[in-house]
Amino acid sequence: MPHIALLSDEPGIRGLFTFRPETARPLNELVEALLRADNTLTRGERELIAAYVSALNECRYCYSSHAAYAAAQLDGGMDLVEQVRDDLGAAPISPKLRALLNIAAAVQQGGLRVTGQLVSAARDTGATDVEIHDTVLIAAAFCMYNRYVDGLGTFAPDDPASYATRAKRIVSDGYLALLSESQRNAGTQA
Amino acid sequence: MPHIALLSDEPGIRGLFTFRPETARPLNELVEALLRADNTLTRGERELIAAYVSALNECRYCYSSHAAYAAAQLDGGMDLVEQVRDDLGAAPISPKLRALLNIAAAVQQGGLRVTGQLVSAARDTGATDVEIHDTVLIAAAFCMYNRYVDGLGTFAPDDPASYATRAKRIVSDGYLALLSESQRNAGTQA
Repeated sequence: MPHIALLSDEPGIRGLFTFRPETARPLNELVEALLRADNTLTRGERELIAAYVSALNECRYCYSSHAAYAAAQLDGGMDLVEQVRDDLGAAPISPKLRALLNIAAAVQQGGLRVTGQLVSAARDTGATDVEIHDTVLIAAAFCMYNRYVDGLGTFAPDDPASYATRAKRIVSDGYLALLSESQRNAGTQA
Repeated sequence: MPHIALLSDEPGIRGLFTFRPETARPLNELVEALLRADNTLTRGERELIAAYVSALNECRYCYSSHAAYAAAQLDGGMDLVEQVRDDLGAAPISPKLRALLNIAAAVQQGGLRVTGQLVSAARDTGATDVEIHDTVLIAAAFCMYNRYVDGLGTFAPDDPASYATRAKRIVSDGYLALLSESQRNAGTQA
């Protein structure tokens, strides 16, 4: 049961967005900018970073969500997402993506864990400064979203289909469009 | 030295805002909503939560900044901020603020560390659901900002006066106004 009385039975972070629209807006603008705006990293690669950090933080709702969003936008699908989660070193991904995921794992432990060596290793695979920046900020942001979702004790559905259904909407419309739709519905119900 | 080539010599997160204005905007909207918008928690109390979490994350730039912003808006000034940092149990603050800071400390460790007992203890001191929500999100957000600042190896000034000077501007104008000013200046230089 959530630690506070939410105004809806929406799972995970979605119930929190309805509870506090003032913070929902910038939180969704941030994730839209990080995971969907134009970037030399694909949307699938960026969702994979989000899913990987959420797995390290053991946030079931965020991992299930972003694993589904990553799987829907990566050639390797859910198998690849799970391979990365279970054994990053052996997963069939590019050297650049592996080096960026190593940086993300360091960020999950703490900002001071990101060493010059990790950054040099990423740069040696062709990673740009913007890609390194965005990887650090995606990983840091999911250390926030994960703590927000679990720190308030929200509910995570068991059924993988519910995440896969949501993935279709995220892939086609994005985070901000779905937030607006949800807030219109909440307004109608109030 | 920062891990990436920033476009300015601004310290801490400010250099990152100039490097990546696309994410700077929602990051500043979030902190403005959390720490300055109308709330039953005072601005000083919310800055204290931010400073306390930044101390737990050992982020020197963020702690020095938000300690200065808290000190400027709390009756006890910097002495109180340092007492909270050094010995929360003994610091002369209200039972409600102490209970909320205990929740913030749990969030810093991980979302799943927030127990029903910690939340009940806060509620027993009169904390509302919105106050509990906002405390969790402030603590979670600073787990992001701290990792962003240190994960990219940004520079933190040693001189306390530089943070105190900045505090005056934050208190009078807020985060978004200072971001707009900084981005106008960056535009002029470009």
